[in-house]
Amino acid sequence: MFLQQATWPEVAAYLERSTGIVIPIGSTEQHGPTGLIGTDAICPETIATGMAESGLLVAPTLSIGMAQHHLGFPGSITLRPSTLLAVVRDVITSLAGQGFTHFYFLNGHGGNIATVNAAFAEVWAEASLSGQESGLAMKLGNWFAGPRVTALSRELYGEADGSHATASEISLTWYAHPEAERRDGLDPVRAPNGPIRDAIDYRKHFPDGRIGSEPHLATPEHGKRFYDAGLADALDDYRAFAGS
Amino acid sequence: MFLQQATWPEVAAYLERSTGIVIPIGSTEQHGPTGLIGTDAICPETIATGMAESGLLVAPTLSIGMAQHHLGFPGSITLRPSTLLAVVRDVITSLAGQGFTHFYFLNGHGGNIATVNAAFAEVWAEASLSGQESGLAMKLGNWFAGPRVTALSRELYGEADGSHATASEISLTWYAHPEAERRDGLDPVRAPNGPIRDAIDYRKHFPDGRIGSEPHLATPEHGKRFYDAGLADALDDYRAFAGS
Amino acid sequence: MFLQQATWPEVAAYLERSTGIVIPIGSTEQHGPTGLIGTDAICPETIATGMAESGLLVAPTLSIGMAQHHLGFPGSITLRPSTLLAVVRDVITSLAGQGFTHFYFLNGHGGNIATVNAAFAEVWAEASLSGQESGLAMKLGNWFAGPRVTALSRELYGEADGSHATASEISLTWYAHPEAERRDGLDPVRAPNGPIRDAIDYRKHFPDGRIGSEPHLATPEHGKRFYDAGLADALDDYRAFAGS
Amino acid sequence: MFLQQATWPEVAAYLERSTGIVIPIGSTEQHGPTGLIGTDAICPETIATGMAESGLLVAPTLSIGMAQHHLGFPGSITLRPSTLLAVVRDVITSLAGQGFTHFYFLNGHGGNIATVNAAFAEVWAEASLSGQESGLAMKLGNWFAGPRVTALSRELYGEADGSHATASEISLTWYAHPEAERRDGLDPVRAPNGPIRDAIDYRKHFPDGRIGSEPHLATPEHGKRFYDAGLADALDDYRAFAGS
Amino acid sequence: MFLQQATWPEVAAYLERSTGIVIPIGSTEQHGPTGLIGTDAICPETIATGMAESGLLVAPTLSIGMAQHHLGFPGSITLRPSTLLAVVRDVITSLAGQGFTHFYFLNGHGGNIATVNAAFAEVWAEASLSGQESGLAMKLGNWFAGPRVTALSRELYGEADGSHATASEISLTWYAHPEAERRDGLDPVRAPNGPIRDAIDYRKHFPDGRIGSEPHLATPEHGKRFYDAGLADALDDYRAFAGS
Amino acid sequence: MFLQQATWPEVAAYLERSTGIVIPIGSTEQHGPTGLIGTDAICPETIATGMAESGLLVAPTLSIGMAQHHLGFPGSITLRPSTLLAVVRDVITSLAGQGFTHFYFLNGHGGNIATVNAAFAEVWAEASLSGQESGLAMKLGNWFAGPRVTALSRELYGEADGSHATASEISLTWYAHPEAERRDGLDPVRAPNGPIRDAIDYRKHFPDGRIGSEPHLATPEHGKRFYDAGLADALDDYRAFAGS
Repeated sequence: MFLQQATWPEVAAYLERSTGIVIPIGSTEQHGPTGLIGTDAICPETIATGMAESGLLVAPTLSIGMAQHHLGFPGSITLRPSTLLAVVRDVITSLAGQGFTHFYFLNGHGGNIATVNAAFAEVWAEASLSGQESGLAMKLGNWFAGPRVTALSRELYGEADGSHATASEISLTWYAHPEAERRDGLDPVRAPNGPIRDAIDYRKHFPDGRIGSEPHLATPEHGKRFYDAGLADALDDYRAFAGS
Repeated sequence: MFLQQATWPEVAAYLERSTGIVIPIGSTEQHGPTGLIGTDAICPETIATGMAESGLLVAPTLSIGMAQHHLGFPGSITLRPSTLLAVVRDVITSLAGQGFTHFYFLNGHGGNIATVNAAFAEVWAEASLSGQESGLAMKLGNWFAGPRVTALSRELYGEADGSHATASEISLTWYAHPEAERRDGLDPVRAPNGPIRDAIDYRKHFPDGRIGSEPHLATPEHGKRFYDAGLADALDDYRAFAGS
Repeated sequence: MFLQQATWPEVAAYLERSTGIVIPIGSTEQHGPTGLIGTDAICPETIATGMAESGLLVAPTLSIGMAQHHLGFPGSITLRPSTLLAVVRDVITSLAGQGFTHFYFLNGHGGNIATVNAAFAEVWAEASLSGQESGLAMKLGNWFAGPRVTALSRELYGEADGSHATASEISLTWYAHPEAERRDGLDPVRAPNGPIRDAIDYRKHFPDGRIGSEPHLATPEHGKRFYDAGLADALDDYRAFAGS
Repeated sequence: MFLQQATWPEVAAYLERSTGIVIPIGSTEQHGPTGLIGTDAICPETIATGMAESGLLVAPTLSIGMAQHHLGFPGSITLRPSTLLAVVRDVITSLAGQGFTHFYFLNGHGGNIATVNAAFAEVWAEASLSGQESGLAMKLGNWFAGPRVTALSRELYGEADGSHATASEISLTWYAHPEAERRDGLDPVRAPNGPIRDAIDYRKHFPDGRIGSEPHLATPEHGKRFYDAGLADALDDYRAFAGS
Repeated sequence: MFLQQATWPEVAAYLERSTGIVIPIGSTEQHGPTGLIGTDAICPETIATGMAESGLLVAPTLSIGMAQHHLGFPGSITLRPSTLLAVVRDVITSLAGQGFTHFYFLNGHGGNIATVNAAFAEVWAEASLSGQESGLAMKLGNWFAGPRVTALSRELYGEADGSHATASEISLTWYAHPEAERRDGLDPVRAPNGPIRDAIDYRKHFPDGRIGSEPHLATPEHGKRFYDAGLADALDDYRAFAGS
Repeated sequence: MFLQQATWPEVAAYLERSTGIVIPIGSTEQHGPTGLIGTDAICPETIATGMAESGLLVAPTLSIGMAQHHLGFPGSITLRPSTLLAVVRDVITSLAGQGFTHFYFLNGHGGNIATVNAAFAEVWAEASLSGQESGLAMKLGNWFAGPRVTALSRELYGEADGSHATASEISLTWYAHPEAERRDGLDPVRAPNGPIRDAIDYRKHFPDGRIGSEPHLATPEHGKRFYDAGLADALDDYRAFAGS
């Protein structure tokens, strides 16, 4: 059940049986010469489709995240951490007032992790500082870090998966958008590694945008396997968090 | 051309021929017993699909807007005006650094108008207060307020279109999602009118969420006509703003 | 009754019979070679004098507004939209705690409209997000946009009234400050039109500060007529909003 | 020269001979049963009239200050300290970009002192943190704390002047608004003293709003003497700060 | 009793007998060629040790304050006033929720005074704007401004104590850190005086960082006397504020 | 070399040979019935003493962190995440202007991790959004998570170390403060485990404050071993980050 495609009485009925919600969160940022700018939003959104089919309520994807280090590549967009913190806080507070209690953010972008967790603490801090119990549980789950997905990545690519514009995530986007498949212009084959700092520094060290990855290894068939693995990981994680 | 489905070198190439971008902005809020919660995002996103097909670059939809008055209905989400202002500022600033100069927000929600325009002024103010020229042009266009769309609304529904959960917008969502068509539970047929204040006040005065509208008049065929009218209006407005 | 010239027991007595208040809001910004920098504050303040005489409580004028685009001309002052939003929020919240419920901002400056309306939503959002009813009604009325004033402007100047440093507003300031009358240095007679962006861009396109106007057409006698029209419009609008 | 009653070319001409400006700042807050709510704005505004007559440029009065402790009395308005800080910062930054360098805030309210000084530091901090020289000098002068004024207060009232709703300030408002003179309802004659905390605590300890004062001692004639003393103090202080 | 070296049950027991707390606040900023960068934190922390020994609860020192003007000298750190305001607000709010009611900030740095007082008002304003009584008392006491300390400073150094990197404070740091004693490189012997503005301006006017002081006059023995005087002043001030 | 006990010329000299700095960051929060409230500040501060002795520059400890979940226990203090973000940003920006480039935060508290990393991104985002290179590297190192420390914890306590008020950290505080050793009142011996939410929820699930730990296993001798292990880990990590 997708929130955007439901009516409010349908949401009211859903709340009778569950107070949990899945919120996909991604980013809009370069993913190397061949990867889609929307990769980090497409991946959790795609997996969340399966979660919606299994009966969970899925909010619209927060498609712009914290991607300051990618701004040197055209098309990348960032929210400042302080802005993203406010967005996550407002989204949770809006729904909490209607009876939602369990917020599961299904994340597609490593750069969001710190800020989204800080936002959770900001919401709880508001309650804690006013001496009230929030009654809220929040969790960030990274689709790319579940046990099945990481095992599959190791099996298919080993070290060649790298950490940005990975074959894993690109496979998953090709499963969702098969027309996006392309492998040209990857030079060197394996992108360099190193720490992430600001945007100019990033472009100096990672001239085509990738980090440590070989995205030409990706295939739509791999993508289907990542979808299955990611969905199973996410459902397990969601249920451990919010009950079934 | 959709930003999320492009690579960064493709965006770099686009910037060689145009520095304008279309940013659909909507809301996640109740639209009466029969309207989709995502109506205000679906409408501009649908029209923006036509803009993307005509060669313009279309950013991912900002699907959560300023909808504080709808929070009394489950599933509605708001950003505080101050949060939305920061989001719009960060999105523009991110892209401005890469050479984009013309930002056209295609809007689906009246509640966003004041805040998005305030955000434009915040961006310009930053430049003006530091004695620099921003080089930026920004415009909010409301898909529902163009000449062809308003004429069509008048022709099809006259006064019965009302102002929230209108047959116009619901027709357009049914064009995009025909499976969403439904007309049950609208009582009274014509929803009441009145001023908008906070969420509890809103639910008191507009008990099923609609304002002045008769959404049962909507049809998917009307939706197709609204799509055509809305796209023509939006393209005209964009070109007058940013050139062709 | 002017708030600044009342005692608190007098305000307490006023609250027994009315919980509405009028808050003039203007701007401090250039108005062309002949217009006063305080024009946008003087106009609503002048009309509010009549409202005070009719028994309404009138707060001190918020004389600095959102005028970022005028900063290229000496003497212009702006609040960032985010600052003005906080000011309006604090003013309303202060008085709401004492029993005021209806806030009518009588506005003299187009540049304030978006931000003040966003501020209203910020106040309501605070209530809506915390599940409380604010009990507050807020409205921004533009003295220059009422039916009598716009008819008078059309009658006296037609298209020559333009949109900044207009003969209408300058007439009204001359009614209040007859010594300010002057008509020198207007070249060309009719100022150019165009969109408003940041301050450097503004000064390039509107070199003497006016937009589309011919302020030499103004007279103090016109000003008297604008005062009468503006007061009647404002009283009607206030009463429709807050009752009599 | 009042900024609000000048044109921008006149301000440009003023900047040729001086880059200093006087900014009256007051408050909108109860001043006991007989004092005007606008007392703290009227006092510096009145003295600033003399400064304007002596050729200095005087900005519009910032008539709403930091008055949280008075909110228990109807008609009192406060800005949060964080809001007032932003207002002062924006006002200074606006004018600094046009060549103003010396900002003299003529203050009428003790509750503003900390926040306005913090705002000055905020402006300087922005420069200091970015490694730039601001070229800006800022000073807060309290009209009620100059040598002539404090001597006159001691001479006329001694200890009976108290610290809020003082005979000194009320005399000055009666000089400006002789029709406001009134002495009824002061019981006890001398108001109590004590520390200032929040609004409810304040109203408990100072039930009619005054602190330590006997405002019935005020006269319009005293007010004239306070005006002369205050103007001489302010001019001396301004000149020591900004040159003549 | 030092908060950092207590357990929570010990703090719970303390709250049974007292709801007051001492919070030393200092700064991290240059103190001339011979003074320690931590001078303004070391001084109140040293005196607070005596307060802790007398049975008061002493929080960890807030060792970074508002020191924007010192940033031109390596090792100096500032919080923006708006940041320091938030820190003080959060510290007070945290402890207020546990039953603390009296907050005594023992301050070592003039640059903190305005901002900390503004922060107190921000906390009270939150209560006042929401119509609640905070039940909180807050006071900033400057160790260097008590009657015994100022008398001792006058006795030992007269005018030569100046206002930054004073012999008084440096004596006290040498009492706490005798190994820090040094007198080299002070040229001229007496540092210049003048107003404080931004960091570049400051370094121009006060090239070695001192203002008006002769820190070579300091001795550890003086430091012991300042410790005794400062402790007696602080205890008196605390008890007048919070009871014994 | 401790920043607080250095003079500015000494810092200037240090900058000639290194542009890195160590900033201990902790928390002020309950650590069970026997652990010190300052545990999370004392631990990194103690290890940083060894770093200072090895010639690195060590800033004053940021002793108040993000501890909202502990507020239900007296003596605990939190900064909101948004406040801590601003503090870290200001500290880094202050020192960056003087030539520091490598900021190593030695952390003692898991609750700080998300927010401090978000703060790093906020600093970089400011540069990235303005198209400038910051030249800054920042890293958060957790003293309790280095290879030697985690091996020692496993060796000494295995699973019994738990995750809050651990024997590891308490041993280290007893090494620094042997007088703090105490083991009474731990019931049950092993504290429960579970997720962390807001303060009231936390106190319900962890009634004496500990999570999964058996702090009676701690000894000062273990503390010495943790000190040695932690220092070696921290020096390795610092050098890998900033060079030697």
